[in-house]
Amino acid sequence: MALKVVALAGGVGGAKLAFGLAQILPADDLSIIVNTGDDFWLYGLRICPDLDTIVYTLGGLVDSVNGWGIADDTTNALEALRRYGEETWFRLGDRDLATHLLRTQWWRDGERLTEITRRLASKLGVNCHILPMSDAPVATMVDTIEHGELDFQTYFVRLRWQPTVRRLRLSGIENSAMTPETEKALEDADVILIGPSNPWLSIEPILSVPGFREALMARDVPRVAISPIVGGTAIKGPAAKLMQELGYETSAQAVAAYYGNVINGFVYDVQDAALPVPVAHATTLNTIMTANTDRIFLAENVMNWIQTWS
Amino acid sequence: MALKVVALAGGVGGAKLAFGLAQILPADDLSIIVNTGDDFWLYGLRICPDLDTIVYTLGGLVDSVNGWGIADDTTNALEALRRYGEETWFRLGDRDLATHLLRTQWWRDGERLTEITRRLASKLGVNCHILPMSDAPVATMVDTIEHGELDFQTYFVRLRWQPTVRRLRLSGIENSAMTPETEKALEDADVILIGPSNPWLSIEPILSVPGFREALMARDVPRVAISPIVGGTAIKGPAAKLMQELGYETSAQAVAAYYGNVINGFVYDVQDAALPVPVAHATTLNTIMTANTDRIFLAENVMNWIQTWS
Repeated sequence: MALKVVALAGGVGGAKLAFGLAQILPADDLSIIVNTGDDFWLYGLRICPDLDTIVYTLGGLVDSVNGWGIADDTTNALEALRRYGEETWFRLGDRDLATHLLRTQWWRDGERLTEITRRLASKLGVNCHILPMSDAPVATMVDTIEHGELDFQTYFVRLRWQPTVRRLRLSGIENSAMTPETEKALEDADVILIGPSNPWLSIEPILSVPGFREALMARDVPRVAISPIVGGTAIKGPAAKLMQELGYETSAQAVAAYYGNVINGFVYDVQDAALPVPVAHATTLNTIMTANTDRIFLAENVMNWIQTWS
Repeated sequence: MALKVVALAGGVGGAKLAFGLAQILPADDLSIIVNTGDDFWLYGLRICPDLDTIVYTLGGLVDSVNGWGIADDTTNALEALRRYGEETWFRLGDRDLATHLLRTQWWRDGERLTEITRRLASKLGVNCHILPMSDAPVATMVDTIEHGELDFQTYFVRLRWQPTVRRLRLSGIENSAMTPETEKALEDADVILIGPSNPWLSIEPILSVPGFREALMARDVPRVAISPIVGGTAIKGPAAKLMQELGYETSAQAVAAYYGNVINGFVYDVQDAALPVPVAHATTLNTIMTANTDRIFLAENVMNWIQTWS
């Protein structure tokens, strides 16, 4: 019998693991619960960067150089917006705009983000369950030494995550809620994975949705995180820099410690094999996913390893 | 002293005359009052085709082959919308989308269409007064023999104005109103022109805004229409076909008769010089505007002729 898998994911790293899982599992047995703390409004459009990265990656249309956006996209609308005097530091492709237009239209019609995401994904041939962590808006706010509190995209894209982070705050999290779909996915899961996404920026918002962490920890199944830190640095993005700023050691072990009782299994890179981790089940694998084959191998290896647990 | 000119305009023909006028008049002395009966919602965006055609034409970025849209534009967003299963018969360019995005955003923020149009136009270097006929939405509905009542864009773009028109209706017109800007423009006008736009589809909606026709006719100044019918046919679009369907003779003279007391002057093409028109002041000119120089010459000739009236 096939195992039902839930994976928590943020941006590019989580999308790569999700791609691997989607190649080895029946669509109906795979649910990806996605961070929506990066979502924001731009030019009147509702933008959900992490959801789009996951759907574009699984749909095979992602820009493989950047890891986000659509391959071979153009930016003529953005150039025209610049001509109108608008700020254009957030790169919105022309093809990509179609996604934001339809999402915004349906959002304004009162549809839930979960349903909107399902409609968009299915049109792109993505039939596993891509589930926003919540239908209610949550905004990750980044308190920095240099500029005070910034919205996430200003910190991440405009300032290229260079400011020094003091503290993170999830605006609106107290009014967010799990969805019937995320509740059912966790309830039915035989395996829960936490992708190699940024633990603070991508995973913490998901775990912080009221009731989510408890619902996850209540499941007596393998709950396995894959480390985004390899050899003391992040594969991509600000994870390592952020850990330092928040006072953590920058190591896979510190990631495992951060997740604590949320997980009972941990996968980290073979490069870090010398260091033991304080988790009931732990293994080292090649976790660096460059080619699609790497993604499939990692997904297979993680699933095979979990099934050896006694 | 410069004359203050108001021109009523719809789509491409009106835009060409407006272009000519803009080259010979100080920006502040020229007001173009534009049909908004073609405006509609698409993909959650507020689209104002006639306003955009005028602004793009005056701003020098119009696609000169079509007469509308932006030169050298791409349609990648539209292709992506098609991939999502959306209907894409209304051609929205990628650069063009910037206009609709900003307009829609500001519209939802509660700004008046007049103010939105001024902001957009000024960013493109268009500083004469481009004035929507009203800030309230009005929708031209087209009752056809083949399909019953159609919204304007379905009739005009999707069905390429092929259905047989029985009747026109201006939905929302009773709740529309002149704006302070159109009122002032008419009050201050030394000359009022009606561009060579479709009298029924482009000009009638403007005249039908409550109070507009009366305000215009109350002005004892030259009120001159330029015929869109030349040699019994329309230069572009459905004007001649529509006249037939609505029971009119397809001639410049019938256009003059239709305008009746709204005008006291009429300009029609040299090709039609043999036929007299029942208007106090009438003249024939070369009204076909192919090159930019034709547009400037027509604007100059019309203005010069008006100043010969005694």
